[in-house]
Amino acid sequence: MKNTWGNNIQVTIFGESHGLGVGVVVSGLPAGLKIDNDLLNHQMNKRKAYGKISTSRTESDEVIFKSGIFEGYTTGAPCCIWIENQDCQSKDYEKVKEIARPSHVDYVADQKYLGYQDYRGGGHFSGRLTAPLVAAGSLAMMFLKQKGIQLGSHLLQVHQIKDDSFSTERDVLEKQVEKMNQEYFAVLNEVKREEMKGKISQVKEDNDSVGGIIETVVLNLPIGVGEPFFDSLESRLAHAIFSIGGVKGIEFGLGFQFSNYLGSEANDEMEMKNNQVQHCSNHNGGILGGLSTGMPIHFKTVIKPTASIGKKQKTINMKMNRDEELILEGRHDPCIVHRARVVVDSVTALVLLDLLIDAQGKGSFLGERR
Amino acid sequence: MKNTWGNNIQVTIFGESHGLGVGVVVSGLPAGLKIDNDLLNHQMNKRKAYGKISTSRTESDEVIFKSGIFEGYTTGAPCCIWIENQDCQSKDYEKVKEIARPSHVDYVADQKYLGYQDYRGGGHFSGRLTAPLVAAGSLAMMFLKQKGIQLGSHLLQVHQIKDDSFSTERDVLEKQVEKMNQEYFAVLNEVKREEMKGKISQVKEDNDSVGGIIETVVLNLPIGVGEPFFDSLESRLAHAIFSIGGVKGIEFGLGFQFSNYLGSEANDEMEMKNNQVQHCSNHNGGILGGLSTGMPIHFKTVIKPTASIGKKQKTINMKMNRDEELILEGRHDPCIVHRARVVVDSVTALVLLDLLIDAQGKGSFLGERR
Amino acid sequence: MKNTWGNNIQVTIFGESHGLGVGVVVSGLPAGLKIDNDLLNHQMNKRKAYGKISTSRTESDEVIFKSGIFEGYTTGAPCCIWIENQDCQSKDYEKVKEIARPSHVDYVADQKYLGYQDYRGGGHFSGRLTAPLVAAGSLAMMFLKQKGIQLGSHLLQVHQIKDDSFSTERDVLEKQVEKMNQEYFAVLNEVKREEMKGKISQVKEDNDSVGGIIETVVLNLPIGVGEPFFDSLESRLAHAIFSIGGVKGIEFGLGFQFSNYLGSEANDEMEMKNNQVQHCSNHNGGILGGLSTGMPIHFKTVIKPTASIGKKQKTINMKMNRDEELILEGRHDPCIVHRARVVVDSVTALVLLDLLIDAQGKGSFLGERR
Amino acid sequence: MKNTWGNNIQVTIFGESHGLGVGVVVSGLPAGLKIDNDLLNHQMNKRKAYGKISTSRTESDEVIFKSGIFEGYTTGAPCCIWIENQDCQSKDYEKVKEIARPSHVDYVADQKYLGYQDYRGGGHFSGRLTAPLVAAGSLAMMFLKQKGIQLGSHLLQVHQIKDDSFSTERDVLEKQVEKMNQEYFAVLNEVKREEMKGKISQVKEDNDSVGGIIETVVLNLPIGVGEPFFDSLESRLAHAIFSIGGVKGIEFGLGFQFSNYLGSEANDEMEMKNNQVQHCSNHNGGILGGLSTGMPIHFKTVIKPTASIGKKQKTINMKMNRDEELILEGRHDPCIVHRARVVVDSVTALVLLDLLIDAQGKGSFLGERR
Repeated sequence: MKNTWGNNIQVTIFGESHGLGVGVVVSGLPAGLKIDNDLLNHQMNKRKAYGKISTSRTESDEVIFKSGIFEGYTTGAPCCIWIENQDCQSKDYEKVKEIARPSHVDYVADQKYLGYQDYRGGGHFSGRLTAPLVAAGSLAMMFLKQKGIQLGSHLLQVHQIKDDSFSTERDVLEKQVEKMNQEYFAVLNEVKREEMKGKISQVKEDNDSVGGIIETVVLNLPIGVGEPFFDSLESRLAHAIFSIGGVKGIEFGLGFQFSNYLGSEANDEMEMKNNQVQHCSNHNGGILGGLSTGMPIHFKTVIKPTASIGKKQKTINMKMNRDEELILEGRHDPCIVHRARVVVDSVTALVLLDLLIDAQGKGSFLGERR
Repeated sequence: MKNTWGNNIQVTIFGESHGLGVGVVVSGLPAGLKIDNDLLNHQMNKRKAYGKISTSRTESDEVIFKSGIFEGYTTGAPCCIWIENQDCQSKDYEKVKEIARPSHVDYVADQKYLGYQDYRGGGHFSGRLTAPLVAAGSLAMMFLKQKGIQLGSHLLQVHQIKDDSFSTERDVLEKQVEKMNQEYFAVLNEVKREEMKGKISQVKEDNDSVGGIIETVVLNLPIGVGEPFFDSLESRLAHAIFSIGGVKGIEFGLGFQFSNYLGSEANDEMEMKNNQVQHCSNHNGGILGGLSTGMPIHFKTVIKPTASIGKKQKTINMKMNRDEELILEGRHDPCIVHRARVVVDSVTALVLLDLLIDAQGKGSFLGERR
Repeated sequence: MKNTWGNNIQVTIFGESHGLGVGVVVSGLPAGLKIDNDLLNHQMNKRKAYGKISTSRTESDEVIFKSGIFEGYTTGAPCCIWIENQDCQSKDYEKVKEIARPSHVDYVADQKYLGYQDYRGGGHFSGRLTAPLVAAGSLAMMFLKQKGIQLGSHLLQVHQIKDDSFSTERDVLEKQVEKMNQEYFAVLNEVKREEMKGKISQVKEDNDSVGGIIETVVLNLPIGVGEPFFDSLESRLAHAIFSIGGVKGIEFGLGFQFSNYLGSEANDEMEMKNNQVQHCSNHNGGILGGLSTGMPIHFKTVIKPTASIGKKQKTINMKMNRDEELILEGRHDPCIVHRARVVVDSVTALVLLDLLIDAQGKGSFLGERR
Repeated sequence: MKNTWGNNIQVTIFGESHGLGVGVVVSGLPAGLKIDNDLLNHQMNKRKAYGKISTSRTESDEVIFKSGIFEGYTTGAPCCIWIENQDCQSKDYEKVKEIARPSHVDYVADQKYLGYQDYRGGGHFSGRLTAPLVAAGSLAMMFLKQKGIQLGSHLLQVHQIKDDSFSTERDVLEKQVEKMNQEYFAVLNEVKREEMKGKISQVKEDNDSVGGIIETVVLNLPIGVGEPFFDSLESRLAHAIFSIGGVKGIEFGLGFQFSNYLGSEANDEMEMKNNQVQHCSNHNGGILGGLSTGMPIHFKTVIKPTASIGKKQKTINMKMNRDEELILEGRHDPCIVHRARVVVDSVTALVLLDLLIDAQGKGSFLGERR
């Protein structure tokens, strides 16, 4: 569906980095949800540029509901969310009109759109498009909360610095998720957190950048969510997450480590415990045959180092067809992993809401008559 | 779209492991393609059980076109492909009706479908469903060939045995792809190939299993294929590939290694060469901003060890809600990676054809008037 | 979605008039429905060629479930239905390869598919494609029956002979629907029925054809079915019904007569009756704002006279680009309205099931655990 | 797809009558189209309330492009169109919160959305939602103009006053379409036009309303547009047109009159003329087998009398579950047919653009490199 995504809810995104603003239309939301503005604002704030380790572009990112919300509740009609651009410095991008930024989509977009694309700040390809995604994801989270579903992520790795992994103990894990959801820079191990921040500060000074790995879990997702053949839970999550700029890999459960194990080591055995069916391990990340097993959903996403760096790079002039050397000016994030974490959580929430409606019906989300 | 996939072509899959057969309807194919039966049969054969390192279930996998092909050409009408099941031993699965196989979808499906699912051999969740996918993918490959697009894969890793990587030299790579497409057990390094086969034979004897990693490349894909925001090339490929049973991770270009690099190391610089725009490296696997760059598309897929093993495992009886020990009988693959390789290629071809029609129009595939 | 239709269930149709057969894949059906073979066969029989007033092509139209049904119940997996072609006389169509039949799609298809289409008997455009639609619709009806929803049609007009209209009395209407569902040639007024049959026999002798109007009602559809903006109940019904060959118009409630009324005459007033909300009339055919009102859904569909006639007609030779005179041989229906009636009912059932799942969730159709 | 419509372009609509405004996102538009502001404004103006025969609510309906347009051209990115509400008198609707307006969706929406819907002025169900549709349709028309495709409508009937029909002479028809596109109140026969306006003025004084019939033609549509089985041109047009509030019927070519003809009278014979294939008549309205034939597309749409009237009506109080008598206050159109005409043209243009991209590819709409 290209620019519109979803079967039961539909998410349609629009906007450009240096245009009037960015937005999203979310259709198909059940009526009667009370908007939790605290949750919404908290999510929006976590995505925002953060102190010295981020770009200096400052945006208030105020969420305006243009439709679909009436007297504080969802109406069942499509919800258009609008976020204005306030701090554009488009002149920084005059140069980019001609000179392709390495590892950016500039040259490809110029070829695809024959030069008509809005090149300023990446235009429609900008990471700024994730702001409305976070707003949309926040709405999805409010619905998931009704069903007791929790989800959260932390930075498992920034450059070569590794955080602890999420616990395999269910109780501990729940507390970790709660804690990470409070954090602006979500790392389990305090020492590693400071090391990561230090690393980011350093590469910023060096006009360089770093990437990292985000580890995500979902708790209390009912069994059987996902649809064979093509809408496996892994398919749907991967589809949505690869829409986020900079994502270059995703793995579920043991992921690429599965290759190092024998079947007898990798299989998740089962047993009865307190009259409940239990998996003895969760190597499959809570998904078998593309369906949720009732165990925590568990996956990792890698984000590449920010392509925008201030170092001199070899590139080409698209209008003149000649070699150039480029030293990028403008305001860039030396690392987007901590901001991207919230976006991963947001699209995860959207996927889960969409698939849950398949499994349980929209009616199961409806509340009391008004 | 759940069980139907695709925007411009639509792939609808059906069938069960121990039912009458398995099939697929492919709609939206341009008219006038001459069916290349050699290519079709070669692809089907590569997916088949292979010698001692595979299951002993033998299926002829003869492809029957029930519709959409007339006098050897596609007509433009939907093409239904049917493959009969011939060698079912359903009694092997009587036990499974009650006892969930660990790391299989049995228990989840039983909960989701309230006991009405066809449990025999995994039913609709069986790897047998990939046979029609390979047939459908072969049709897609015939269209891609018209445009000079080539694709292929090899087994980068089986258990802990690693093959060489695909070459970064364009000319060498093209020859490697051609060679791998001829192979039934596609490994670049002859020594490693024998080691891998030996490993698989050994785990078969041990009633155990192994998984591995598949490395895939696509050559000559035009620039600009993929659609923002949600139909990025990575999104669409990942969505389709995660539909294949056993896939637990995918990464593009440097993938998870991106985290270990600085931006200045990871970026793909550009230059003019013979008046053509060139990327100096391909760390991004031929995709930027979700669009093809003109460089080879490059990704890796991990397949977990086959869940069916003959070793004793702890599990539960779904009807009696009690613990059980299970020693699986029946015929199983100790490794499916070499067979899955063809399936990865097939769904890749389907994704590319679908996105190419977006970019270039169905008309660009039409041939001469008959 | 072109050849696949539906949001919650998906219907994918395939086949040709003179190929191996015709079929359909229905995905997304809830698990646990017991197949009612009597209903299925009755529906299939009503669509069949009927005595002297139909084509002499005789097809057994046996429905084969290739997948998705296990031990007599839906499994939740996609259900492929296959109906073999048995009585093709393709040589009748040799002439048509070159000479376009007037008011058929022959010339247009030849242009669109560059001569590669299967021209025999209309190929994929044949009315024979409605056989699998009736089978699919029968499955939908079984689900609707679970919820007490009834639907049926009669021939309101054949050529210029008019049947009585459906009653506006709810009790009478219900009995009429039940009776019409039993009939092979569904007409309320016995006298008119014989007149209609006489007319069809006569035009058959004259090598001519007639069309007519079908009146359809749906009883007990819950309030609120349909989705704004684009999936209004009228939009979805019209979309599906115009897919049936020969349909050239549809109107809901008063339809085109609305133009002759004032608002004060046309409006449906409301009142409380036995503590229930009642509409005092049903001029809107049970649909307001695109949503079901709880009143009977009521619409009329016009079917044009069969294009295939045995009279001499002016046409063109597509290969030679010259004028021709054509006297069609082969076996044709002088009237398809009585057979099309079952097809209208079938697609109506499919639309309602699809929209009901939106409104009430798939779970609401699930039965007892097996 | 519920609230999002289209395969190649996607139209996502949002907004409410008395909220901040109304809008639409149009995705998938080819890059490089120069926005024709004159055409856009002319279309918007024709939809506006018009003199004494319309509601007195006055809206400037200024179209704001929030995204997707850069320096006067489409960029290929999604285009969000926003139209502010400026002249709301929401207090007129306080009463409606409790009292259902007859023949409006009020009661149904209250049941479906549990009282959470925005009830003011019909909320998301308001005819005001057609303003962004007209803006979106104007963009589609600009693309169609590139290919020489013309379309237009006139009021064939208002209440019982009938205009002349469109000419069957191709040259005359073209001039009629051009003339009608200039008119605010599009009627071919000048005498009838004044009669119609007189009738509307009269029913306005009577606190009553009237409906009518719109006749639409499309010229120069290439042969073969439409996709079997489910995306017939008639299916797609009907689907979109029934999304417009107040539409209760559509017929193509002879439409419901087909029932009165014999096949030999109704068939469109063919002949060669100046070496071109010609249809000798166009009873099928330019569509055979769901595909365009190259003849003018021709259809009629009926619009019911405006449901809002100032006469006393019987209805119910939804909160108190009791009978009420309602005399509607507020500002209403005594007739919307002349305004709806532009909406029919607009959605027709959107359907044609969507299907043309299927047939000819998006690339065929791309212009020169910038």
